[in-house]
Amino acid sequence: MTDILMRADQGGVATLTMNAPGTLNALSEDMLTALQSEFDALMHAEGIKAVVIRGEGKAFCAGHNLREMTAARQAPDGGRAYFNALFAQCARMMTSIRRLPQPVIAEVHGIATAAGCQMVASCDMAVAADTARFGVNGVNIGLFCSTPMVALSRNIPRKKAFEMLTTGTFIDAPEAERLGLVNRVVAEADLSEAAQTLAQTVASKLAVAVKIGKEAFYEQAEMTVDAAYAYTGRVMAENMLHRDTEEGIAAFLEKRPPNWD
Amino acid sequence: MTDILMRADQGGVATLTMNAPGTLNALSEDMLTALQSEFDALMHAEGIKAVVIRGEGKAFCAGHNLREMTAARQAPDGGRAYFNALFAQCARMMTSIRRLPQPVIAEVHGIATAAGCQMVASCDMAVAADTARFGVNGVNIGLFCSTPMVALSRNIPRKKAFEMLTTGTFIDAPEAERLGLVNRVVAEADLSEAAQTLAQTVASKLAVAVKIGKEAFYEQAEMTVDAAYAYTGRVMAENMLHRDTEEGIAAFLEKRPPNWD
Amino acid sequence: MTDILMRADQGGVATLTMNAPGTLNALSEDMLTALQSEFDALMHAEGIKAVVIRGEGKAFCAGHNLREMTAARQAPDGGRAYFNALFAQCARMMTSIRRLPQPVIAEVHGIATAAGCQMVASCDMAVAADTARFGVNGVNIGLFCSTPMVALSRNIPRKKAFEMLTTGTFIDAPEAERLGLVNRVVAEADLSEAAQTLAQTVASKLAVAVKIGKEAFYEQAEMTVDAAYAYTGRVMAENMLHRDTEEGIAAFLEKRPPNWD
Repeated sequence: MTDILMRADQGGVATLTMNAPGTLNALSEDMLTALQSEFDALMHAEGIKAVVIRGEGKAFCAGHNLREMTAARQAPDGGRAYFNALFAQCARMMTSIRRLPQPVIAEVHGIATAAGCQMVASCDMAVAADTARFGVNGVNIGLFCSTPMVALSRNIPRKKAFEMLTTGTFIDAPEAERLGLVNRVVAEADLSEAAQTLAQTVASKLAVAVKIGKEAFYEQAEMTVDAAYAYTGRVMAENMLHRDTEEGIAAFLEKRPPNWD
Repeated sequence: MTDILMRADQGGVATLTMNAPGTLNALSEDMLTALQSEFDALMHAEGIKAVVIRGEGKAFCAGHNLREMTAARQAPDGGRAYFNALFAQCARMMTSIRRLPQPVIAEVHGIATAAGCQMVASCDMAVAADTARFGVNGVNIGLFCSTPMVALSRNIPRKKAFEMLTTGTFIDAPEAERLGLVNRVVAEADLSEAAQTLAQTVASKLAVAVKIGKEAFYEQAEMTVDAAYAYTGRVMAENMLHRDTEEGIAAFLEKRPPNWD
Repeated sequence: MTDILMRADQGGVATLTMNAPGTLNALSEDMLTALQSEFDALMHAEGIKAVVIRGEGKAFCAGHNLREMTAARQAPDGGRAYFNALFAQCARMMTSIRRLPQPVIAEVHGIATAAGCQMVASCDMAVAADTARFGVNGVNIGLFCSTPMVALSRNIPRKKAFEMLTTGTFIDAPEAERLGLVNRVVAEADLSEAAQTLAQTVASKLAVAVKIGKEAFYEQAEMTVDAAYAYTGRVMAENMLHRDTEEGIAAFLEKRPPNWD
């Protein structure tokens, strides 16, 4: 684990801090590798029940590292192989967030732009400072935010997504909440506490139920309604058979707290 | 027809009242069977042009009957077969709502939780009292609301749905309207009248056109845009050939009310 | 080019004005043919970087021409072949909007009803006068707006779309913005300027990047997340290899304006 990404675990919550403030936490090769490495570790970190992602310095994340990408143009193929590998690596990192068993919360301050905005959209939930701003502004430099829009267009209404992508315009935190890109907006001074509180709330639930549910959430979203019901019906029946679920329901019926683990 | 579910027909509107206030209208086996039976009857009730679903007592519906489900654990398989059958029966009831030719309106007061919230999401439209609250809070007892999320996640933005499912937090009626889970919010004293007024508005339209449109609404939603246009183009051409549609258009062009019976 | 549809080009923006105020710019055969003809021309109009569609007279567009459709009933088949051809022609026009390389902005005043509302939903973006109203009210005359709902239901939340379709109720401009049907609402006196300003903003971007992005926007929307990333990753890698994108990124890193022509 390099110091470009710091991890602190407390009370079942792992907090990842991107730590490259000089580049506004750009998703350099090193940052992508560090994030992937932590996600791979969290996949089997059974004591961890929720994850928070935040950024050190003035911004959450400003997207890809354009200097690194420009340097890659020196290759004989003009960078083609590098760019294809880079976007595949980035997409793998983004989709690892939804494949984690734990819910992942973006804690957003400053700006979240391009692939940084994509990270917010890719997280399961997001909390933002009232001063945060969001943009998919690659179009301003001639590089349309095509991969960020995969996540963004599954979070907010279609015409608003199109406008952000083709005009490069930023939206502020209240609009991000209204559109569905973030779950809540708080004063900047309260941001970390709000993100941790949400994470602790999730971490207080039965981890196996949350894991079952998160996986099913994204699986069923890509099915027809009939297929989704056939699938989630089986998921719920399996959920019922867990010992801790039996205890949770028994406790509820007896009006007492559940005796888990 | 058992008295666990009451039906009253007036002016082309069938009003179904779930009548198990002692269990907050829980979706017990009996309730599921009664609802399915009524939906099967309504499928061919040609005089009925709209349906309202409401609950007697303090709540709209509090979801599954946990005592009944717990009792099923006594079976040799720990309840596996029972649970699979139960969730399949419930999904069949929920999807029967969208298969009905008549629009179905949820009239929601008190709480709508878990499969009760799923019923609201499964109805074509919903009217809520300003005091109503909505939750998919199974996670609190270790049973993730996996089947309710099929309907919920097709009504409201993704991150909000994820938050409700993993935190068990309730939302109030104004937020439910803002997110798209209900169509309108009224004072509790005006709730039944508002639901009936909406139902009467729908019932005043040409029933065959509404039936054609409702079926196409859900069918096309699961298609690509090109396939959806190929399909709905044929649907509209057929609609044009109905005698009552010819009369409706003729009446409009002649600035007179249509002569429908 | 007939005078039923006027086109004016300025500064890379083509403005199409539907000019049949006597029928509230109804989508007659002539209007559909004129729109298709312009869209076909714009497909290869490389100097044009954005398109605005507006209506002359009291309304943006009131949908199909019911007199023409009624006349078609005189055919031996009661109009069946005509109606099928008409809806296919209309769908082709609507989907041509998204197939154009340029973003298309609806400039909406007065009413946008039925297929007129579908045009608003089919455009990539929309700006509305605060006095504009929107409806898919065919149900009022017995002709459910089945093709308009293909576009509408991909713009706004499901229950609101269902209500508009089955009650024929209009929504005003602020609600249209809140639901996602339009991007912004301005005073009627400022409408054309607001639409042109948005078009100019888009037109100021690198056209090839916008073209790449618009195509990918709609393609990826119909894919699973994994397929969407595999596809858009390749799209972005290709985008990186454009000479003007190289210049755009270089200019950004050197803190100077890009030298695009």
